[in-house]
Amino acid sequence: MPSMPDDDSPTAAFDPAVEAYLDRTRAARHESYLELLRIPSISALPEHAPDLRRAAGWIASELARIGFDHAEVSDTAGHPVVYADWLHAPGAPTVVVYCHYDVQPVDPIGAWETTPFDPFIRDGRVVGRGAADDKGQLHLHLRAAEALLATRGRLPLNIRIVFEGEEEVTSANLGPWLEANRDRLAADAVIISDTGFFEGNLPALTVALRGNLYTQIDVVGSPVDLHSGGFGGAVENPANALAHIIAGLKDRDGRILVPGFYDEVVEPSPQERFEISCLPFDEDAFRDEIGVRALAPERGWTALECKAVRPTLDVNGLWGGFQGDGQKTIIPASAHAKVSCRMVPNQDPGVIFERFRDHVLRIAPPGVSVEVHNLGTARPVRTDTSHPVAQAALAALRGEFGVEPLLIRAGGTIGVASMFVEQLRLPLVMLGFTNPDDNAHAPNEFMRLENYERGLRTICRLWDDLGAMAASGAAAQAAGTGARG
Amino acid sequence: MPSMPDDDSPTAAFDPAVEAYLDRTRAARHESYLELLRIPSISALPEHAPDLRRAAGWIASELARIGFDHAEVSDTAGHPVVYADWLHAPGAPTVVVYCHYDVQPVDPIGAWETTPFDPFIRDGRVVGRGAADDKGQLHLHLRAAEALLATRGRLPLNIRIVFEGEEEVTSANLGPWLEANRDRLAADAVIISDTGFFEGNLPALTVALRGNLYTQIDVVGSPVDLHSGGFGGAVENPANALAHIIAGLKDRDGRILVPGFYDEVVEPSPQERFEISCLPFDEDAFRDEIGVRALAPERGWTALECKAVRPTLDVNGLWGGFQGDGQKTIIPASAHAKVSCRMVPNQDPGVIFERFRDHVLRIAPPGVSVEVHNLGTARPVRTDTSHPVAQAALAALRGEFGVEPLLIRAGGTIGVASMFVEQLRLPLVMLGFTNPDDNAHAPNEFMRLENYERGLRTICRLWDDLGAMAASGAAAQAAGTGARG
Repeated sequence: MPSMPDDDSPTAAFDPAVEAYLDRTRAARHESYLELLRIPSISALPEHAPDLRRAAGWIASELARIGFDHAEVSDTAGHPVVYADWLHAPGAPTVVVYCHYDVQPVDPIGAWETTPFDPFIRDGRVVGRGAADDKGQLHLHLRAAEALLATRGRLPLNIRIVFEGEEEVTSANLGPWLEANRDRLAADAVIISDTGFFEGNLPALTVALRGNLYTQIDVVGSPVDLHSGGFGGAVENPANALAHIIAGLKDRDGRILVPGFYDEVVEPSPQERFEISCLPFDEDAFRDEIGVRALAPERGWTALECKAVRPTLDVNGLWGGFQGDGQKTIIPASAHAKVSCRMVPNQDPGVIFERFRDHVLRIAPPGVSVEVHNLGTARPVRTDTSHPVAQAALAALRGEFGVEPLLIRAGGTIGVASMFVEQLRLPLVMLGFTNPDDNAHAPNEFMRLENYERGLRTICRLWDDLGAMAASGAAAQAAGTGARG
Repeated sequence: MPSMPDDDSPTAAFDPAVEAYLDRTRAARHESYLELLRIPSISALPEHAPDLRRAAGWIASELARIGFDHAEVSDTAGHPVVYADWLHAPGAPTVVVYCHYDVQPVDPIGAWETTPFDPFIRDGRVVGRGAADDKGQLHLHLRAAEALLATRGRLPLNIRIVFEGEEEVTSANLGPWLEANRDRLAADAVIISDTGFFEGNLPALTVALRGNLYTQIDVVGSPVDLHSGGFGGAVENPANALAHIIAGLKDRDGRILVPGFYDEVVEPSPQERFEISCLPFDEDAFRDEIGVRALAPERGWTALECKAVRPTLDVNGLWGGFQGDGQKTIIPASAHAKVSCRMVPNQDPGVIFERFRDHVLRIAPPGVSVEVHNLGTARPVRTDTSHPVAQAALAALRGEFGVEPLLIRAGGTIGVASMFVEQLRLPLVMLGFTNPDDNAHAPNEFMRLENYERGLRTICRLWDDLGAMAASGAAAQAAGTGARG
């Protein structure tokens, strides 16, 4: 399998003063990275709200110390947004930089080699919750700006920082915040750093993201658990009923059975499928890396297509009745499942939710009560790779890594991407640096230190490249006319 | 709906001295009942092992104080058995009395009106874990013997007490204990008090029990949870796979799809089905009492048949992946289910397990690893109602309640019943007194105080009736020749 070039491989020349600064401050930089990871900013768990605020405060202080203006912890109806700006490069472009400082829950906690919020660096890896998704990438933006400001006293372009605290819970309050802060988000583009490289850790730019629909199905029978001996056979079992419903969502070919689910799907062209087939993706190595018996792509599609350009339906969790050791002979009072669907262009998650809900209620057995809840949606997005900022990002990657970056469609979802595109009409560039085996959302999340270090340098290169461009006329237009999408 | 006669209704005459004793000691008796319920003897949870031993010690002390001989806490490989005997009625029959002092777990704890082990008596109900199943029934045996010994200085027959501590965990260690104690279990019959009355709280003798097979299905995909965006579509989801497996166990008519599942089932005769249809069972009232939208019997069978004479398959619990509030976008590493089947004559749970396991493995999707574990089995049993001890039990019920008791086939399972029948070849009488709405195995378990009090008197009557019989020649034979079944 091809691999990322060695740290010592020759790459295009870069500012020696900045390089020297980065070399000198390496230890402090890594300690600061770990310091940020130690704050357990789990946005899904209400008891961690003070930790979210603590993380936001830590970041805002850093931004102010580095030299950003207007660094503030800005309240929302949920966890706060960190805003800051540096706007002293007249004539140069302006970019919004988006990352998020909230992280996923840590269960199953027993599967971690470390305490998730007691991170460490070992064998070239930074291990801990948020190391990759997304505190690591947020942190390299802090350090890139610091390096440029510390060595030159100025940045080559104008930057507006938007660091969110609710990305892992569908960014429910970011839309209103963007609307309320429209005036100070005027920019030529938004750079989102919450993606990663291609399999084999090959440098890449993510040019499309799937959307998401997250639901919960609640199946209720009796108000209390019933004795399975005294009642078994006479009543519908909510857990059996839930299994029947879930089994009725997808056939054994992997085709989703919700009527109308595929109606708006834009299928990739033969040319696009050919290009995907040319990517250096080794199915066997991929299978072995994730440790499953066999891959299980939808019939008629490759695994790589399925995890990027095809919509999906997955149970994220299910529960009901007795979960302990040994036996408890009950018919559970209720059973529940979290079910989510990844969406591709041009699926509308709101419309798909209605079709999904109707289908679930249609196939539910009559002896139970069933409710289907929409817990969050995000639309799929694509990047216009001909845009100057996208071209500059590709050039920065090429410059740092000495290889032609791949253009990839990622299977994940960043809800805020569609908000920036639809609400603010900003051109979107998703430039992220994590290794694809980073265990994001899973135990033992990690980021390779090399990805972090070279990502940092790539960002410095990008800012320099963009600074060399004149601000486009399109910038003012985009900022001024961005009607809500 | 017919109901149990009032407490004041005239019933056949009973020993006035014993009645007077029972009246005088009522308050102390109820306090003692609550005292036993306060010991959290949950056999399924290892951390409660000391509580099991405490309960056993409490009971053994009571037996010795009442006047039983050889009262002891007898060790097994699991929780202990309490043994005692009173064998000073030469020429009278000998019975083994079986109850169990262990109880079910208490989850979901939030659904209890009280702390499960802080029982109370209110509105004629004793509420707390074990009030009905089975500490309440065990306790009335203590108090019945006490009343007879206190008023007369002797019992009318010979009794051997076997009170178990592992009934709720399939009595795994009772079989070896019975084998090791075969010599001191010589008897004419075994009386098991772990059943109840018919719907509407109508006095009844249970003449058949379903058997049980308890399994666990473990479905494993990747060793860690995978990000549902990055991997969704390319790999089999263990939770979806589990749902597919469960849905493949039973069709929508309620017919179990495991090949060979029904091969040995003895179907009830037309006469038996007619008798079942004559029982005073109101389906609408039953449905409303348990609070489900609709009953869901197997096609071609009534709800009453399904909960007594038909085999079943139920999920008792299932779990996997994220169960918290909000969203976590993962493909779970694994998913699990507890699945149990009630067995009817002449199904062999061991044979059915093999067919079940083979079927599960056959329908499992190829992208996951599946294991099926047998967590315990119990054979179905029936009572010979022409046996003199069964006839005496019916007479005692008739005498106490003034109505003809119903003969019912119960849907539940008492694993030990088949052990006494098969290992010790003892005639089996299941004489229990709990109201059928007792919430056994569920939150807010309770026993009606009237059932308890009249059950106590029924036991006294039965001992008197049996004492009046000469020990049958069959007794010695049964005790002497009981080869292992």
